[in-house]
Amino acid sequence: MLAIGGRVIMFGRISNRNALMTDFPRFTALARNLPATVPFVGPEALERTRNYPINARLGANESGFGPASTVLAAIREAAGEIWKYSDPEHLSLRQALAAHLGCGSENIVIGEGVDGLLGMAVRLTVEPGTTVVTSLGGYPTFNYHVDGYGGRRINVPYAGDREDLDGLLEAVKAEDATMVYFANPDNPMGSFWHADDVIRFADALPETCMLVLDEAYCECGPAEAFPDMSRFIDRPNILRFRTFSKAYGLAGARVGYAIGAPQTIRAFDKIRNHFGMPRLSLVAAEAALADQAYLQAVVGRIIASREEIAGIARDNGLTPLPSATNFVAIDCGRDGAYARSIVDALGARGVFIRMPGVAPLNRCIRISTGPHRDMQLLAEELPIVLEALG
Amino acid sequence: MLAIGGRVIMFGRISNRNALMTDFPRFTALARNLPATVPFVGPEALERTRNYPINARLGANESGFGPASTVLAAIREAAGEIWKYSDPEHLSLRQALAAHLGCGSENIVIGEGVDGLLGMAVRLTVEPGTTVVTSLGGYPTFNYHVDGYGGRRINVPYAGDREDLDGLLEAVKAEDATMVYFANPDNPMGSFWHADDVIRFADALPETCMLVLDEAYCECGPAEAFPDMSRFIDRPNILRFRTFSKAYGLAGARVGYAIGAPQTIRAFDKIRNHFGMPRLSLVAAEAALADQAYLQAVVGRIIASREEIAGIARDNGLTPLPSATNFVAIDCGRDGAYARSIVDALGARGVFIRMPGVAPLNRCIRISTGPHRDMQLLAEELPIVLEALG
Repeated sequence: MLAIGGRVIMFGRISNRNALMTDFPRFTALARNLPATVPFVGPEALERTRNYPINARLGANESGFGPASTVLAAIREAAGEIWKYSDPEHLSLRQALAAHLGCGSENIVIGEGVDGLLGMAVRLTVEPGTTVVTSLGGYPTFNYHVDGYGGRRINVPYAGDREDLDGLLEAVKAEDATMVYFANPDNPMGSFWHADDVIRFADALPETCMLVLDEAYCECGPAEAFPDMSRFIDRPNILRFRTFSKAYGLAGARVGYAIGAPQTIRAFDKIRNHFGMPRLSLVAAEAALADQAYLQAVVGRIIASREEIAGIARDNGLTPLPSATNFVAIDCGRDGAYARSIVDALGARGVFIRMPGVAPLNRCIRISTGPHRDMQLLAEELPIVLEALG
Repeated sequence: MLAIGGRVIMFGRISNRNALMTDFPRFTALARNLPATVPFVGPEALERTRNYPINARLGANESGFGPASTVLAAIREAAGEIWKYSDPEHLSLRQALAAHLGCGSENIVIGEGVDGLLGMAVRLTVEPGTTVVTSLGGYPTFNYHVDGYGGRRINVPYAGDREDLDGLLEAVKAEDATMVYFANPDNPMGSFWHADDVIRFADALPETCMLVLDEAYCECGPAEAFPDMSRFIDRPNILRFRTFSKAYGLAGARVGYAIGAPQTIRAFDKIRNHFGMPRLSLVAAEAALADQAYLQAVVGRIIASREEIAGIARDNGLTPLPSATNFVAIDCGRDGAYARSIVDALGARGVFIRMPGVAPLNRCIRISTGPHRDMQLLAEELPIVLEALG
């Protein structure tokens, strides 16, 4: 086989046509140099590649409690309208959210999950070489977007299983960063900071640094963790991200929203896919928001499930960490390889969970809350797995 | 009022807090300079701003015939699973599409409508200053993406109400363009080129130029317009874009797909929102694809509706153009201002239509096919509007 000028010339029988094919030569330098990685592998891929069924889906912090029955009714009712594009301004949902949050509809932009909105925020702010600060072991999809736009990423280690607010601030100032990511409550550890600390952090940030405040898990955490909506709403350098994917039970609908100052929110209009939101997803989100009684009931079940997971962990000699989210990080007391072997072995027995990606967080496994039948399966399988691993 | 260093200082009562607010100072230069425009205004916004209801929705080339009943049943059946993220690889739909099209699943990427996929293709290929060729009056959302990534856009006039293939090719060569957009059948004029011409055009393109072949309306056009799937499938510089939004009646689901060589399709994995596709949208698309009998019935209704629109146009002294799509462009015989006044006046009477944006195409109005009740309303309202305009 000869490689000449980027073309591969094979002698003999052509066993794979693709091997003969060249890449399109003019992808941008940025695109050419990006890895073909996926931030998360889905449980469906695990089922396909390892050939086992998932019986308990406890790895993606979805809500096995599902959405409200009022939501399902609204979806089924609206299904016949699916031939119509959605209102590209999403005004109805934005107004409902504004009334719920105590802000204006001009403070809200809707997008394809927090993931989609993070991508847009990064695109507006990051170009090759732009400095972005996040936590070492923080949300991989945020990193994916930063890398995707060529950002220079500074990763600050966690301190005491929490994101290190002082460390993040110090890095922002030392590196003159343009953006900083902070999740409260935190994923993957489940920890949180008090609103007063968040405010202190935000107030100390230079106005030249955009705070990406990821509050995806806010419905599961204590009220004291969240600054009043009015506190940051006029600050052009602060965006708060929330979602219907977690406590509202609508991960499959892909509806996230960002909250911020009107002129910052308007910037999204310059680049977003205006007709990108599915009609039934918007209907589902609005119905979910309207059913706060169901949300409160689910939050109660999430809290009970956290305790159930913690109990199962302790019963097996492991150490559950406190959680302000819909998952529990469990310290397995050894290294990342050991935690990985637990994740893999549980998966092979039909219990899908995940774990943090880097040390020292990766001494833990991460298990999503879910209905009692999933907890029972976990309680049955975990001791078998641990005994086999020794 | 004083403006000092970008800050606005107002004396007296503050009537509008926003007027006091500065922009975030570090959006990228590209983002700062983009206009806050929307490619299309939705009919919902027309209803809100002009305060009239839309009774016939014939402006966005949706399908008023709706999706198959089997699709609605599939959505309602799957609604309860909406708490789960979708398979980020969309393997089930990709395999179904591959079987339908006669290619491999590695030749297909799914995205948030053709609009979303066009954005990704542009992002992979266009950076500030990159030359892109399209038609003057061609798809505005493609232009939006090119402008959004800073591309240098060359706009080739239509020739005889068709995109000018020779002119596009000449521009690509003269300007050494990195990307060229061509819609077949065409939007907004409804015209098409024969497959032989498309192949001749594609074969004459330099390998350094990516052909964006937008076939969103392919189900509505004659078979002779479309090169065999095998013809371009190994060409790294050709991407074909298709959608479930038109004949399949699923505009509100936002499911498009791009077809291309595996190494080009794989490039999308570097940047796409892997968990961005809604679960029920994927279910709907797969069900729609499975019901080809319904699709064929709808295509028959689209053809009949085109004839109905053409008849209404002729009855009113206007000239319908031939159409290979689910809409009809109608030459109103005067200038863009006249056509605009027809669009506005029809809208004010509850009939939502659109029109091409630039001369000489904007002598036309563009009316989507739809059920007979919509055609009746059009037949009633058009003469009233024309008489009032004189």
